[in-house]
Amino acid sequence: MSSMAPVLIAGSWRQASDATGHFNAENPTTGAAIAGDFPVSGAADLEAALSAAVDVAAELAATPPERIAAFLEAYADGIDAAADELIELAHAETALPREPRLAKAELPRTSGQLRQAAAAVRGYRWTQPVIDTAAGLRSHLAPLHKPVLVFGPNNFPYAFNAIAGSDFASAIAARNPVIAKAHPSHPHTSRRLAEIAHAALLATGLPPAAVQMLYHFDNEPGLRLCGDSRLGAIGFTGSRAGGLAIKAAADRAGIPVYVELSSVNPVFMLPGILAEQGEALAGEFFASCTMGSGQFCTNPGVVTVPTGADGDAFVEAARQRFAAASPSVVFSRGVLDHLASNVDVLRAAGADCLAGGARGNGPGYDYQPTLLSVDAATFLRNPAALQTEAFGPTSLLVRAADIDTMVALAAAFEGNLTGTLYRAADGRDDAAWQRVAAALRPRVGRLIANRMPTGVAVSPAMNHGGPYPSTGHPGFTAVGMPAAIRRFAALHSYDHVPDPLLPAELRDRNPGGVPRLVDGHWSDADLETA
Amino acid sequence: MSSMAPVLIAGSWRQASDATGHFNAENPTTGAAIAGDFPVSGAADLEAALSAAVDVAAELAATPPERIAAFLEAYADGIDAAADELIELAHAETALPREPRLAKAELPRTSGQLRQAAAAVRGYRWTQPVIDTAAGLRSHLAPLHKPVLVFGPNNFPYAFNAIAGSDFASAIAARNPVIAKAHPSHPHTSRRLAEIAHAALLATGLPPAAVQMLYHFDNEPGLRLCGDSRLGAIGFTGSRAGGLAIKAAADRAGIPVYVELSSVNPVFMLPGILAEQGEALAGEFFASCTMGSGQFCTNPGVVTVPTGADGDAFVEAARQRFAAASPSVVFSRGVLDHLASNVDVLRAAGADCLAGGARGNGPGYDYQPTLLSVDAATFLRNPAALQTEAFGPTSLLVRAADIDTMVALAAAFEGNLTGTLYRAADGRDDAAWQRVAAALRPRVGRLIANRMPTGVAVSPAMNHGGPYPSTGHPGFTAVGMPAAIRRFAALHSYDHVPDPLLPAELRDRNPGGVPRLVDGHWSDADLETA
Repeated sequence: MSSMAPVLIAGSWRQASDATGHFNAENPTTGAAIAGDFPVSGAADLEAALSAAVDVAAELAATPPERIAAFLEAYADGIDAAADELIELAHAETALPREPRLAKAELPRTSGQLRQAAAAVRGYRWTQPVIDTAAGLRSHLAPLHKPVLVFGPNNFPYAFNAIAGSDFASAIAARNPVIAKAHPSHPHTSRRLAEIAHAALLATGLPPAAVQMLYHFDNEPGLRLCGDSRLGAIGFTGSRAGGLAIKAAADRAGIPVYVELSSVNPVFMLPGILAEQGEALAGEFFASCTMGSGQFCTNPGVVTVPTGADGDAFVEAARQRFAAASPSVVFSRGVLDHLASNVDVLRAAGADCLAGGARGNGPGYDYQPTLLSVDAATFLRNPAALQTEAFGPTSLLVRAADIDTMVALAAAFEGNLTGTLYRAADGRDDAAWQRVAAALRPRVGRLIANRMPTGVAVSPAMNHGGPYPSTGHPGFTAVGMPAAIRRFAALHSYDHVPDPLLPAELRDRNPGGVPRLVDGHWSDADLETA
Repeated sequence: MSSMAPVLIAGSWRQASDATGHFNAENPTTGAAIAGDFPVSGAADLEAALSAAVDVAAELAATPPERIAAFLEAYADGIDAAADELIELAHAETALPREPRLAKAELPRTSGQLRQAAAAVRGYRWTQPVIDTAAGLRSHLAPLHKPVLVFGPNNFPYAFNAIAGSDFASAIAARNPVIAKAHPSHPHTSRRLAEIAHAALLATGLPPAAVQMLYHFDNEPGLRLCGDSRLGAIGFTGSRAGGLAIKAAADRAGIPVYVELSSVNPVFMLPGILAEQGEALAGEFFASCTMGSGQFCTNPGVVTVPTGADGDAFVEAARQRFAAASPSVVFSRGVLDHLASNVDVLRAAGADCLAGGARGNGPGYDYQPTLLSVDAATFLRNPAALQTEAFGPTSLLVRAADIDTMVALAAAFEGNLTGTLYRAADGRDDAAWQRVAAALRPRVGRLIANRMPTGVAVSPAMNHGGPYPSTGHPGFTAVGMPAAIRRFAALHSYDHVPDPLLPAELRDRNPGGVPRLVDGHWSDADLETA
C-alpha cells in the first residue's frame, strides 16, 4: 500500500489512513491501466478533511482579499508553467487531443478563470455592498465561514476539475476552504494540479488546509459528508443520478447545493436558415457534436429540423459526415456503457439511427459518432424518453413540419442549460423566432442565436446554469466571474453597528474604491458623512 | 355550505368545489368564534388554482413592468383606503393592538412595502443586467414563468400575509403569478386584502389569475402541491416543522423554496453596557420581548448577561417588569399550547423560571410574560434543548462569567435571523465585541448593535434571513427591496442574440436609463455602438 498516491489533507500530502479500495487511471484509447495506484478514501479521511477545513474556515474568512487574489494568481501561474506536463497527463488519462483542446483551449481557460476570480476578489463587486444611511443598515455578501465540498466531472480535466475549475475558484474567491473530490477518471492530472495549488498556498501564506483533495470515495461515506451540517455548500458537476443523490443529502441538512446535471441543449433550425446555408450548418453541427467526443454539458443533443427539401438536404449532409467519421474515444468504460445503453433507449422510443449507433472496433472505449432521427409526433408522444442524454458524440434530430410543431416541441423540453435558434440573416425567420423563443426561453439558462452551444465563455454575462433538472436552482451560474462566486456566500447585514466595528468595505471611508450602492446610487467614494 | 366564504381562483370569487372541511376565526381574547365559515380547500381547488396560474404565467412575464408597478401601487392605495376596516378585522382576529401596532406600524409598512416593490420594478436594478460586448453575451434576472406559492404566517396579518406581504410583493414584482395560502388564524383580514388586490388587478389590467387565494388546505394535498413541478418557487414564513415539511417536498422536485423558520435571536449584553445603563436596558428588553405578545420572528429569545452585580441588577429589573405584567393574549390555542409546552422544555433542560411560566386566567389564549434563566455551563451542556423557541412573550437569560464563556455561547448557537451585541458607548467593550461578534457573525443574518432585534426595516440593506435552520439558504433575504425580489427570478443569458430580439432592457438603446453593468462599468446610457 505504500506505493499508493498520497491524499492532500490538513496541509500535507499523506497516505490514506483507511482506504476502502484503490484504483488506477486508464488510457481510454487502449483500455490499459496507467501506472499509479490511487486510494478510495474511507470515512476517517473524509472526517479528517472536513474537520481540518472547519478549523481554518474563520481564518480564511478573515484573510485579506489581496492575499486570496495572490493565491489564485500564483496558482494560475503555476498551471501555466506546468502546462507541458499537465497536457501529457490529461491527454493520457482522457484521450482529449493535446491541440487545440488541452493546450490552446482548456488549460489557458483554466488559468484565465483563476485570474478572473482574482480580479473579482480585488474588485469586491461580487460582495454587492449596500448602504442605507437612513435606516442605519449595511449589507454585503460574505464568506460562508464553512467548507465547500466540490465534485469535479469527468469531462474537463482542468476547467471544471474540483481542484482547479470554476467551483474551486469561486469557493476560494469567497474565502471558503475547499475540499475537492477529484474525478477518478483523471487522478494523475488532479494530483499534479493539487501539488501546484498546494505550492501556491504555501507561497502566499493561506492556511494550508484551505485546499484539500481526495481522489475518490464510496457513495455511503460520501453522501454522509454531503449531509454534514459542518459543510457550508456543495458544488457538483456530473451525472444526473449522482447529482440528485448529493442534492438530496444536502437538502435534508439545509446545505446549499449547486448541481450542474444533464442537458440535451435543444437546437432549432428555423426554415429560412437552411435555405440560406444548410450545408455549412451541417458541418458546424457535426463539429460541435463530435468535438471532445461529444462529452460536453452543452453538446447539441436534440436538433429540430424542418421537414421538406431544405431540411432533408441538411440532414443528409450531416448524416454523411457522421457516417464517414471514425469512432470517437470516450473517457471510460462507464461513459461507453452509458452511451450505448442510452442510444438504445432513444431507439426503443422510436428514433431511427441514420449513422453510427455501435461501438468501435478499437481496443479502448470508442463509439461511432451517431446521428438519430425521429418525427415530431413521436417525440411529443414520449418526450421524457426522447430527452435521454446520450453523453458522447450523439445527437437526435427531430423533424417538424411547421412552426406550430416547433413551438410544441420547445414547450416539451424540461430544464436545459442552453437553447439555440438558428435564423436567417434576412429576417424572414424572425416571426418564427419570436414564437419558438418564447416557448424555449423559460426552459433554458442561455438562449443562443446562430451558434452551437458548446462554447461557454467565462464572462460576467454567462449563464452556465438553467432550470431544474439541468441544475438545482435557476438563479445561479456555475461559470462566469463574479456571478459564480455569489453561490458560495452568505448575506450579512449590519444594523447600527459603529463604523470601526464594520468590515472594512462597509465603513464610511472607502479608500479601496469599492463599488457600493449607497442610498440607491452607485458610488466608489467615501460616504459623505466620513 | 352556501354561506361559506368564497375562494379566489382563476380571477373570480367562487365557492370551494371540494372543501374537505371548514373553520372559523376566533377572538383570541375570548376564545369565541367569529361569525363566518371558511373552507379547507381540497385537491380539486388546489389543482384549479395551480393550472389557472400556469396558464397566465407567460402573459404575466411579458407584462410591461410599468403595469406591474401600477398594480402594486393601486393595491397599496386600496389598503390605505380600507385601513379602518382592515384594522378592525385584524384586531378582532389577532388581538394585536389597533394602536400603534396595526394602524401606525404594520398597515403603513405593508402598503409602503408594496410601493417599494413598485419602485423596484420601475428601477430594474433587481434584474442585475450585465452586458459583455466582447463576448456577445447579455444577462439579467427574469421571471420564473411559473407560479409562486406563498404561505403566510400567523404573526403579521398584513406585512407577511400571503396575499399582501413581502413574499407576495416580491413574487409579483418579478412578474410571477402568486397562489396565496392565507393563515387560518386571520381569514377575514386575508379575504378583505384579497378583495382589494383583486380590484387593483382588474383596475390595472393584469391577468386576473395572477393573484389567487385559498384560506387553508390539509397537509397531504398541500405537500403534493409543494412538490408539483409546475410551480416555480415557494415562499414560506412560519413554524420549523411546517417549513421543513414544505422544503422537503419542494427540494425533491427541484423547486426553489425560501423558508423563514424559527429563530431565538441571541442577544449579548457586554459587561460595560450594563454598568452604563442597565436599568434602561431592562425596560428596552422587556418591551421588545412582550410587544405583540412576543410573537415576532425576531423576538429576543436568548439573552446572555454577565454574572456579577451589574448583571444581577439588570436581571432583577427585568424580572420585576415581567412579574408585574398582565398575561399576554396570543393568537390561538395552538400558539398557546406550543408556548406552554416549550417553556416546559426549557425548564426540563434546566432553566429556572424567574417570572411568569403559566397560562393566564382569562377566557382566551393568554400566557404570562415569562422570564427564564440558566447558567452558561448548563446551556453549553444542552444547547439544542435550550435553543427551543418558545414563541410568545418569553425569553431565556443565560448568565456568563466572562468573555470566554460568551464566545463559547455564541459559538453554540445554530443559524438565527439576528444576533445582537450591546456595548458601552465609551469603547470599553470593544475588545469583547470583536471576540463575541466573530463567533456570532457567521451564525446570524443580521448583526445588531445596541438595539433589540424586533424591528425589521424594509430596506435594501436589510437581511431578514440567515443560516439554516433559521432559513433554508443563507444568501437571501425575505424583506427589503430589491433583494427579496431576486428570490423569485431565473438568470437568463443571451448569447449573440440580435438586438431587436433581446428583451428591451438588454438592447443597445437604453431609453429608460436602466442601470446596467456594461463591460465592467455601471451605465444607464445607451451602448456606444447604438
